[in-house]
Amino acid sequence: MATHPRTRGVEMQQVAIGIDLGGTQVRAALVDRRGEILARQAERTDSRGGPSRVLSQIRQLVDNMISDAGSIDVIGVGVSAPGPIDTVTGVAANIPTLSGFADFPLKAELSKLFPFPVCLENDGIAAAIGEWAFGAGRGIDNLMYVTVSTGIGGGVIADGRVLRGRRGMAAHFGHMGVMLGGELCACGNHGCFEAYASGTAFAKRARESSLNVASTILDGHRELDARDVFTAGRRGDALANALIDEEAKYLGIGVTSLIHLFSPEVVVIGGGMSHEFARLAPGIRAYISERALPGFKDTRIVPAELVGNSGLIGSAALVFSEQEKGSATDIQNLAAGRNFAC
Amino acid sequence: MATHPRTRGVEMQQVAIGIDLGGTQVRAALVDRRGEILARQAERTDSRGGPSRVLSQIRQLVDNMISDAGSIDVIGVGVSAPGPIDTVTGVAANIPTLSGFADFPLKAELSKLFPFPVCLENDGIAAAIGEWAFGAGRGIDNLMYVTVSTGIGGGVIADGRVLRGRRGMAAHFGHMGVMLGGELCACGNHGCFEAYASGTAFAKRARESSLNVASTILDGHRELDARDVFTAGRRGDALANALIDEEAKYLGIGVTSLIHLFSPEVVVIGGGMSHEFARLAPGIRAYISERALPGFKDTRIVPAELVGNSGLIGSAALVFSEQEKGSATDIQNLAAGRNFAC
Repeated sequence: MATHPRTRGVEMQQVAIGIDLGGTQVRAALVDRRGEILARQAERTDSRGGPSRVLSQIRQLVDNMISDAGSIDVIGVGVSAPGPIDTVTGVAANIPTLSGFADFPLKAELSKLFPFPVCLENDGIAAAIGEWAFGAGRGIDNLMYVTVSTGIGGGVIADGRVLRGRRGMAAHFGHMGVMLGGELCACGNHGCFEAYASGTAFAKRARESSLNVASTILDGHRELDARDVFTAGRRGDALANALIDEEAKYLGIGVTSLIHLFSPEVVVIGGGMSHEFARLAPGIRAYISERALPGFKDTRIVPAELVGNSGLIGSAALVFSEQEKGSATDIQNLAAGRNFAC
Repeated sequence: MATHPRTRGVEMQQVAIGIDLGGTQVRAALVDRRGEILARQAERTDSRGGPSRVLSQIRQLVDNMISDAGSIDVIGVGVSAPGPIDTVTGVAANIPTLSGFADFPLKAELSKLFPFPVCLENDGIAAAIGEWAFGAGRGIDNLMYVTVSTGIGGGVIADGRVLRGRRGMAAHFGHMGVMLGGELCACGNHGCFEAYASGTAFAKRARESSLNVASTILDGHRELDARDVFTAGRRGDALANALIDEEAKYLGIGVTSLIHLFSPEVVVIGGGMSHEFARLAPGIRAYISERALPGFKDTRIVPAELVGNSGLIGSAALVFSEQEKGSATDIQNLAAGRNFAC
């Protein structure tokens, strides 16, 4: 019988597709078993287009990537989405940044698009998994990932396992209260961590305070963003530096609370604000060292390593984990346990 | 060969000894495999006597119980102690309510006292285990236990396992901040949950406000305690009822934060204040229902069932679990996992 030696000798490379569905961008990547990104595509999310439009964006990205990639063996699709997502039923309870996703059967609808298995995970947890499997948290049993961006979210690895909780909805850090009756949060409550320490809250404080301070180069009449404040700070602007120190303190406050709850070895800071980790970290560490109970003061604070790709890589890692479940190669066993159905 | 039919037919009953070491009382119980307390003894903790004095109190209680009990087979001692306790090394980092327990090798010293294995656990986690194994949390995979008493502590069961974290020190709920720069806490920080919602904080507010309100039957010149306020409330005292409603709100605030972090199915409220669960629960539930994100609003809030004995029974349950580790009868596998060494 004739054989085809070139195909026979070389096995097609197995890849997983990671999708990071966000309120601003939807991104897709081909990821290999070692967490390397082989290809990556992104486009602006049609956040008002409704579920069928967003699903067709995802479908299109995946199709493009597969046809561009040539000879690959896609073993599944991992999708990271803003929550709360019930990862047992696969239903999005509510995605505030995307229209029409209230009580939406996201996993079932995604599964109709593709001929391979779909894993759906809350975005903070997916990013924590990415950092744990392939980033700043490799080999660490107790890890807390905090993403600081438009909002604040995260994920927890505790005792060597992904912490999921009922419906897989644990680690909604942004809505821990830090100030009774304080600033209004996007969730409708007052005083949430997110309403103080997110990039959005930081930029808002910068705009407001720059209008009342004559000596600053910050111009609150334009659309200031977090980056503008750090740039001004580096130029020696006193107001900008005071705002940055205050932001570090707010981050320290939230992180100090959280380390008493999860007792991590390491806190990984991700999200847009982590680009300025070096500037923020001393203030965060100082707060912890001053205020935490003995036994928590030495918690390490480090920046994310997969910056911007933690969720993409984490959701792809879930697919590999699901494939290997129970096998000898299944080191991390990410998808295992209750409160998750891949 | 002659046999002794009565001894031969009846196996000696296996029991574990549970110890609950607290700042006020040290308590001991003989507990059977079903979580039933067969005998119980307690005495006032010599909180200023130092470790050797406290250890001899524990020794004495255990000796008394064993000699009173007659024919039993003691398989081990489980000790619940105020933390933070590093349950990997067995060292008490710091027990604020007991003199001389800073960096004290508690497990090693306890092990010298007894000819059987010793399990040491943080008190909040031990109580959570008690409620999970034999109390209000039976059969529930995602459980949060909050004890509200002199201070606030707790423990978490997530995804069907005890959450321990680094050094086994997770779930120090009392030191989650709820109010930036707020009330001074016993830990030295400001604005901790404990500084607002503990029984101590509640009684303090009652004393202070009663001095400024003429129409109340509360007398702030005496040593008011939480019970006095509930009694006055039941008699229709308006100030007392306002104070109780405020306390329920503070509990609701902390619990609302915590359910976004751990996503429990059920929150079990224990500790001294849980004697008034029926009066407090509507206010706690109302706050959660108003402020929590969708998907968290339906979290159940229930009172502890083993009131006062959750920690005793939980620490004894750890001993049985350790004995059965990996066996077919080991249903709960409480001691399993990383960050704990029984």
